[in-house]
Amino acid sequence: MIKVGIIGATGYAGQELVRIITQHPDAELVTLTSQSYAGKAYEDVYSNYRHLSYICQEEDIEKMADMCDVIFLALPHGVASKKITDDILNKVKIIDLGADFRLQDIDTYEKWYTTHYSKNILPEAIYGLCEINRDKIKNKRIVANPGCYTTCSILSMYPLVKEGIIDNSSIIIDAKSGATGAGRGLSLPNHYCELNESVKAYKIASHRHTPEIEEQLSYAAGENIVINFTPHLIPMDRGILATCYANLNNKYTYEDIKSVYEKHYGNEYFIRLTKEGTFPETKWVKGSNFTDIGFAIDERTNRIIVIGAIDNLFKGAAGQAVQNMNILFGLDEKTGIDFVPIFPA
Amino acid sequence: MIKVGIIGATGYAGQELVRIITQHPDAELVTLTSQSYAGKAYEDVYSNYRHLSYICQEEDIEKMADMCDVIFLALPHGVASKKITDDILNKVKIIDLGADFRLQDIDTYEKWYTTHYSKNILPEAIYGLCEINRDKIKNKRIVANPGCYTTCSILSMYPLVKEGIIDNSSIIIDAKSGATGAGRGLSLPNHYCELNESVKAYKIASHRHTPEIEEQLSYAAGENIVINFTPHLIPMDRGILATCYANLNNKYTYEDIKSVYEKHYGNEYFIRLTKEGTFPETKWVKGSNFTDIGFAIDERTNRIIVIGAIDNLFKGAAGQAVQNMNILFGLDEKTGIDFVPIFPA
Amino acid sequence: MIKVGIIGATGYAGQELVRIITQHPDAELVTLTSQSYAGKAYEDVYSNYRHLSYICQEEDIEKMADMCDVIFLALPHGVASKKITDDILNKVKIIDLGADFRLQDIDTYEKWYTTHYSKNILPEAIYGLCEINRDKIKNKRIVANPGCYTTCSILSMYPLVKEGIIDNSSIIIDAKSGATGAGRGLSLPNHYCELNESVKAYKIASHRHTPEIEEQLSYAAGENIVINFTPHLIPMDRGILATCYANLNNKYTYEDIKSVYEKHYGNEYFIRLTKEGTFPETKWVKGSNFTDIGFAIDERTNRIIVIGAIDNLFKGAAGQAVQNMNILFGLDEKTGIDFVPIFPA
Amino acid sequence: MIKVGIIGATGYAGQELVRIITQHPDAELVTLTSQSYAGKAYEDVYSNYRHLSYICQEEDIEKMADMCDVIFLALPHGVASKKITDDILNKVKIIDLGADFRLQDIDTYEKWYTTHYSKNILPEAIYGLCEINRDKIKNKRIVANPGCYTTCSILSMYPLVKEGIIDNSSIIIDAKSGATGAGRGLSLPNHYCELNESVKAYKIASHRHTPEIEEQLSYAAGENIVINFTPHLIPMDRGILATCYANLNNKYTYEDIKSVYEKHYGNEYFIRLTKEGTFPETKWVKGSNFTDIGFAIDERTNRIIVIGAIDNLFKGAAGQAVQNMNILFGLDEKTGIDFVPIFPA
Repeated sequence: MIKVGIIGATGYAGQELVRIITQHPDAELVTLTSQSYAGKAYEDVYSNYRHLSYICQEEDIEKMADMCDVIFLALPHGVASKKITDDILNKVKIIDLGADFRLQDIDTYEKWYTTHYSKNILPEAIYGLCEINRDKIKNKRIVANPGCYTTCSILSMYPLVKEGIIDNSSIIIDAKSGATGAGRGLSLPNHYCELNESVKAYKIASHRHTPEIEEQLSYAAGENIVINFTPHLIPMDRGILATCYANLNNKYTYEDIKSVYEKHYGNEYFIRLTKEGTFPETKWVKGSNFTDIGFAIDERTNRIIVIGAIDNLFKGAAGQAVQNMNILFGLDEKTGIDFVPIFPA
Repeated sequence: MIKVGIIGATGYAGQELVRIITQHPDAELVTLTSQSYAGKAYEDVYSNYRHLSYICQEEDIEKMADMCDVIFLALPHGVASKKITDDILNKVKIIDLGADFRLQDIDTYEKWYTTHYSKNILPEAIYGLCEINRDKIKNKRIVANPGCYTTCSILSMYPLVKEGIIDNSSIIIDAKSGATGAGRGLSLPNHYCELNESVKAYKIASHRHTPEIEEQLSYAAGENIVINFTPHLIPMDRGILATCYANLNNKYTYEDIKSVYEKHYGNEYFIRLTKEGTFPETKWVKGSNFTDIGFAIDERTNRIIVIGAIDNLFKGAAGQAVQNMNILFGLDEKTGIDFVPIFPA
Repeated sequence: MIKVGIIGATGYAGQELVRIITQHPDAELVTLTSQSYAGKAYEDVYSNYRHLSYICQEEDIEKMADMCDVIFLALPHGVASKKITDDILNKVKIIDLGADFRLQDIDTYEKWYTTHYSKNILPEAIYGLCEINRDKIKNKRIVANPGCYTTCSILSMYPLVKEGIIDNSSIIIDAKSGATGAGRGLSLPNHYCELNESVKAYKIASHRHTPEIEEQLSYAAGENIVINFTPHLIPMDRGILATCYANLNNKYTYEDIKSVYEKHYGNEYFIRLTKEGTFPETKWVKGSNFTDIGFAIDERTNRIIVIGAIDNLFKGAAGQAVQNMNILFGLDEKTGIDFVPIFPA
Repeated sequence: MIKVGIIGATGYAGQELVRIITQHPDAELVTLTSQSYAGKAYEDVYSNYRHLSYICQEEDIEKMADMCDVIFLALPHGVASKKITDDILNKVKIIDLGADFRLQDIDTYEKWYTTHYSKNILPEAIYGLCEINRDKIKNKRIVANPGCYTTCSILSMYPLVKEGIIDNSSIIIDAKSGATGAGRGLSLPNHYCELNESVKAYKIASHRHTPEIEEQLSYAAGENIVINFTPHLIPMDRGILATCYANLNNKYTYEDIKSVYEKHYGNEYFIRLTKEGTFPETKWVKGSNFTDIGFAIDERTNRIIVIGAIDNLFKGAAGQAVQNMNILFGLDEKTGIDFVPIFPA
């Protein structure tokens, strides 16, 4: 049994991680911590755990490193980079659900986020987008678990960029997220009556997932890519839909593009390509690790429109984190995360 | 592996059954049928199954009886009672999610429903409310899986009735259900914009779960009980909350009543009694087989208010059906249905 | 033009009041105040007012009393009772949307709320339930605008209690409210993902609207009435549904009861009795001052079930407050509040 | 009083029209028709009208033309073009909420829709986008009321196209609509549990509002424009948000672009430009005729992102139709449609 510790277990992503780990056949939740709720019964923070008896612990990463085989961090940005040392990495695998180790370009990180406190460690961190980086993840000590929007956006566009199908300067990603993406922290915009029955864009041309998408797509393209990314908030709990636009470099048929996607994803269990004329909807991936991808070509404008859908808390956070754990520990990648999407829910 | 057949697999309860069975470690889905979608890929009916390849079959219960160890029926009332014969029961276990075998009193059945076509078989059917009838279920050939409202209502009130704590003529159950309870059939009241952002009562003093609750509570009481039951439709997908009122027969403290509930449910894994001052909410049981129960005593009126919560599709339908299967086949009752509730979803 | 001031204009009820007054043909909004947002543009607090240019003022009730003909107070309980003096009442009419002047029984007020600071003024306050107390309101200096649950509950049960149709000790009111009832103040239970897709009861046997309902029904009955009242929170913005139960004193037909309701409400524009077999739903009164009422008799238990529906922010708060203003100033009661319910919304 | 007839009064847009007209100070609803509900009380179709007593009539446009000053048509495409004759237009003004008279290019109409049956009348129809075509509307006999998506999209992009600010070949409009946009007709995708808690794109590269946007923007540009338009369905009742992308032709500051919008919309009562850094949300225009517009410039890509928001049933259908009526009859354009947006609702 893999001994698991979770730091930051009382946010939405942390809780989803607890839910998955407590049901994982090869993992055991050894300890969970919470800054806000230390000492409190976990069931009093999340009453879906009424039948379990976890207590929120004070965080002590040194101690946890001795007790655990892997530690998941679900923390605000800037916090993880202060905690991780070479010493800790010698004792325990780290899977960081935050942003601190996702961008290899430190200038970009510090421009979009804050000062980085583990510049020495950053180079060995691997971007844990499993379907793309699987082989590079295996032997790492630290995995940067991708962001929710980024997971959905990159997986949607990767084959097109990799294969040089599109004009890389023309990429526009218009994304829609459920409210869990905004977390459990109180704020007026996330108050029920303020968010319900309305839709809005936010952080237009300024969302921090933008450089993350750009860096990964740039790796795939072998050239620097700059995109437009616009997130929207949808009155629902879970789910991300990314509607991606790009100009095609040539005339392509549906079958041409389909074969590009199949080349990269044909054997990927957790990526499901939709049939021609059908498109992903967030409901069909809810509570699962699947990414559904579909596309259409607009012959009038010679643009491609790719739609991707994930569950932001699952494939977009905790599920992919456990997928990374499975890779790190040599398990079947599906172990403990192979849920059929729950519907209607 | 238990070989499972599902008749009526394309309604919401049927789909939930497919979801549970396909993830059950000791069961195998051999065949699923659908009157409306025969011949169609199941993933085209429910795209959460994009990674699986079931085909909806024409129903042929005789053939299924030969192929399967157990058949689940998820059909409109009046249909199951026409299909079940002694012959079939000799070949296969039947778990009926419909109403046809729930009421032992045929007059009541025919008054509230329609003509009953298996009067000879009815007496051997057991009401599959697992926590109450576990021992009587084990050796049965046919189990009548309880209704959603009834499961929640009976479990909430059973200890009080069984122990003679309340005036049985004073029971009022005001229940609230998510929209999955109304099924997948199209109708104006269940059209999105008609149901959204509104609440209503329906089938006031006339809902068919009324006699079902009455019959079971009457067994517990050893006397005939008549109740008021009012269902309401809530703008959400899943969940039932039952708010139950009754006059106490005496002065009781919170502790007195608590001990009554603990006597009956203290060892029940799937029943979780809430702490004093906290009460069930449907979100904390979503996607799980749990029934959460809490209560308060109003000293001013000497009434007790009991609140019960379940997931109507899980404990209120498919989950309990599989719990019954587990009992019938001698498995640990929790096998394949021991999900931590999913939140937020 | 009636000169209007609003104190506490940035809560949900306060904002609804601003919305109604700014569209009222015979009233003029002279000033609005907000403790939290003083100095801020109102459109920055509520962007539906982007086309208007109100500024939130510091509260100064003395100054407002000189400027206005009527002041609406939308404040937390305990605050209004400190502000109102005989001096102010000599200058300006007061319509208080809070609880401080609703209960004539000071002991009850202080038991359920807090110390009362205007005991001398309380006796002249009139409970502004327009359909019941219209004639007593006309010449008052101060009106206590009823609570949302209470408006719906009392109007639903008043004719039965007044005419001695039911056993007054048997009244149970199971009420359901949209989330605006919980106000705009931040709290975890009202965070979007915590409230969405779930239903719960709260303040069971302890909600402060209980004694308010009891006092008014007791006046109608001429005897002391104690009831059970259970509020529930529904995942929607607006609306209250009250499901009321009582034992009938005799055998009554539907027509008998109907004539009782028609006797009291037959000429009330803002009360709409539903046809036999149809029942109120909150969507049909949204954005309006209507109270819809319907009922059924359960012959099996000889209980009556009465359903009432209102928009909690309109008839349950701001709309009725303006209805009271219209009465105080001798206008047609419908002036400025005669909106057709908006649907679907 | 303007005598008004409404054909197709029982769809969502038709009902909104009834709601506005019955509250309009200078209009009188003379008759309303419904193919599906002829003979039925309107309150039985929409119970928000419980206090009114309209009866759904059989449609007889000839008769209506004699009785009315203006007839609104809210019909499926292809139906209106069969009904309108020169004879009728000599008797009564026509405001058509359907698509039949919106496209002046008949080939485009017949390619995207169906055969057109009033080719002779089409040239005199005016596209009733009031803020753009006000002066051309005044003396017309027939007004083609714009579509919901188109109203929002065109108003958002018009100043940029008109002033030559953007590369017209680069326009991408990613739009999000509430479920009322899909109408009241029953269908599985609009069944409550299928639409709730999910988001999807639909009619990708094939939605019929595409050529309508293109035709109008082409008029503004003086050249042929082809765009990408992708509609999405959002789990809410009302509202459209259009997120519009285009490449800027030059380097522009925020102030540059702001002045372009102010030039065209600075005096438009029903268009509200948001402040820098704030953006439209559908909730702030709900139940009103306002169009809120905001924008950001992404300097990294030199693209502009324009966000527009309307209430699809109001400014996107019935409200703008009445705005057109007001123009046709020489009333103040705001008459009867100057509602403050309702919030939260």
